[in-house]
Amino acid sequence: MEKVTYRNALLSVKPVNGEYYTKAKERLDSLVKPLGSLGRLEEIAAKLSSITGTLTPCIDKRCILVFAADNGVYAEGVASAPQAVTAIQTINILNGATGVGVLAKRFNTDIIVADVGVDADLSHERLINMKVRKSTGNIVKEPAMTKDEAEKAIDAGIKLVGMAKKDGYQAIGTGEMGIGNTTTSSAVLSALLGLSGSEIDRVVGRGAGLSDINFENKKRIIKEALRFHSPDQKDPVDILQKAGGLDLAALTGVYIGAAYYGLPVVIDGFISAVAALCAARLSPTVKDYMFASHSSYEIGYRAAIDALGFSACLDLEMRLGEGSGCPIMFSVMDGALEILKNMATFDEAMIDNLYVSQIGLSF
Amino acid sequence: MEKVTYRNALLSVKPVNGEYYTKAKERLDSLVKPLGSLGRLEEIAAKLSSITGTLTPCIDKRCILVFAADNGVYAEGVASAPQAVTAIQTINILNGATGVGVLAKRFNTDIIVADVGVDADLSHERLINMKVRKSTGNIVKEPAMTKDEAEKAIDAGIKLVGMAKKDGYQAIGTGEMGIGNTTTSSAVLSALLGLSGSEIDRVVGRGAGLSDINFENKKRIIKEALRFHSPDQKDPVDILQKAGGLDLAALTGVYIGAAYYGLPVVIDGFISAVAALCAARLSPTVKDYMFASHSSYEIGYRAAIDALGFSACLDLEMRLGEGSGCPIMFSVMDGALEILKNMATFDEAMIDNLYVSQIGLSF
Repeated sequence: MEKVTYRNALLSVKPVNGEYYTKAKERLDSLVKPLGSLGRLEEIAAKLSSITGTLTPCIDKRCILVFAADNGVYAEGVASAPQAVTAIQTINILNGATGVGVLAKRFNTDIIVADVGVDADLSHERLINMKVRKSTGNIVKEPAMTKDEAEKAIDAGIKLVGMAKKDGYQAIGTGEMGIGNTTTSSAVLSALLGLSGSEIDRVVGRGAGLSDINFENKKRIIKEALRFHSPDQKDPVDILQKAGGLDLAALTGVYIGAAYYGLPVVIDGFISAVAALCAARLSPTVKDYMFASHSSYEIGYRAAIDALGFSACLDLEMRLGEGSGCPIMFSVMDGALEILKNMATFDEAMIDNLYVSQIGLSF
Repeated sequence: MEKVTYRNALLSVKPVNGEYYTKAKERLDSLVKPLGSLGRLEEIAAKLSSITGTLTPCIDKRCILVFAADNGVYAEGVASAPQAVTAIQTINILNGATGVGVLAKRFNTDIIVADVGVDADLSHERLINMKVRKSTGNIVKEPAMTKDEAEKAIDAGIKLVGMAKKDGYQAIGTGEMGIGNTTTSSAVLSALLGLSGSEIDRVVGRGAGLSDINFENKKRIIKEALRFHSPDQKDPVDILQKAGGLDLAALTGVYIGAAYYGLPVVIDGFISAVAALCAARLSPTVKDYMFASHSSYEIGYRAAIDALGFSACLDLEMRLGEGSGCPIMFSVMDGALEILKNMATFDEAMIDNLYVSQIGLSF
């Protein structure tokens, strides 16, 4: 397979097909319903048409790309779960036993798991080894990774989309597993939005369930890391390298890759949304391939999705990660495509109406 | 089949099984995820357990009950579509050509359509004739219907749930078709909430798409109708009779019937939510069987769902009616049940972890 670097991918991201967006809207407006009355389902259908360049898009074959990685900042006590959970859950996800697993199975979605930085030697027949390094550095004391490592992780994300495309997948979901990654995500989001001081508190949540004391510590640690590094607000790769995580970097690559390979991509929760914002800052065009799914309960999600200019379709107060919001969103998208493809037009409905008058309709 | 009146049904509505709610929550807390991290999916699963009295609820066989009826207030110019659209779309819904039809098919949901008051003689092999009268009266000048007619319509809703139960349906969705029914719904909601004067404007929307002038007229007409009738805020049947519609009354019966027959019932959009509030005012117990689905774009929806104490799971800016929000909500509920039934517990995940350690996990 060709080696695609994110720099090359960004240069050759294709714009979506505006003509098919318009054609889809025209068809939707001809359907037997008040104009626009199916709201976001219509918007989703038109967007899928513009991405695929057809009025009959298909996303029946879809997968969630889950990136697993550990975070050095774990040492600062920012997480409620033991670090080993990253490795354990990575295997559990592969075995379909976790939240994303059962939801994906129900909604006909495959799961592809890649290790980009788990702090253990994992092996599993379906685990894709893309390990850039074992865990990141502790961002309070050192950069999370080198610039080269950040670029490698982004490229790994693009590569996995390319592999999925080659395997016939028509839509991509985003997932991650990494104890401590709400901390790195809040740090990256703060840097992207140029937040400082107490503004940062607005995008830091309790993750999997921190106590009050540990929550205060988490906020302090994030501020300390940002003061220590002063990452360049205008350079998402610099931010990812200094204060991010390997999962965040790989997911950033997934969004770029989705645009590069012309595939729709679903944003999951907080971590996924922060990576989406990184990708959008590198190239606004990639946003045309993204779909927001659910509004994560993790507090920073809203700032991230607002910065992207999206609104979530689902409000389920979920905060599990793993890509667990993607399967239900694929189901919503299935509904949107059903409308576009199979609803009757006003003209077609008129035929029925003649039939009605024959069988006894009287006014 | 037994004849169940709403008075009898209200007297014998069964409370849900709190023991199974607790058991479900216990199982959900034992699953391999942070406590509560699947948010509303967990709440939905536990509620379904409490309704069905089992830890393995099934809603695979489900239907939407759609009630069609015309509204006399149409004469006042409150709707943007011709009145004949009620009859035409009733037949189109039966033929699966409309929004709810294609969504229902995709999400394995049947549609059952009953005529409770269409202003035409309709016939279709699958149309259930429960006509109480042809159209209601014009609520600005006369009561929508007699008390006897209101009770007949409510009883029709209960009866249709009983028929669905007998046919093996495990979950019920609510739908309606009736030009002018956002006007009657706004009137009923205003009366239920005790709104007066300009407060009423907050729950009146543009329906299928009124012009500015007609929108102002609609608000005026609703206020006039309420001044004319002064319905008893404490008596939903009085409100339905004077300012409501036959679809609203029948749907009120559906919610009562769902509780009476022990079936989960999904609220669709604005009209459906107003009927849910009527039912909840008649017996708060019925709320334990209800599930909010999507947040309708029609402005009054929020006041109705707030009064019920619910929050919508989907935010799709839909305003089509017909029950079109129910199929996607059934899909969300499918996901919730998948979690409850098939996700691994921490104990089960530990078995995997031993396996992991055998294949090379090292910390």
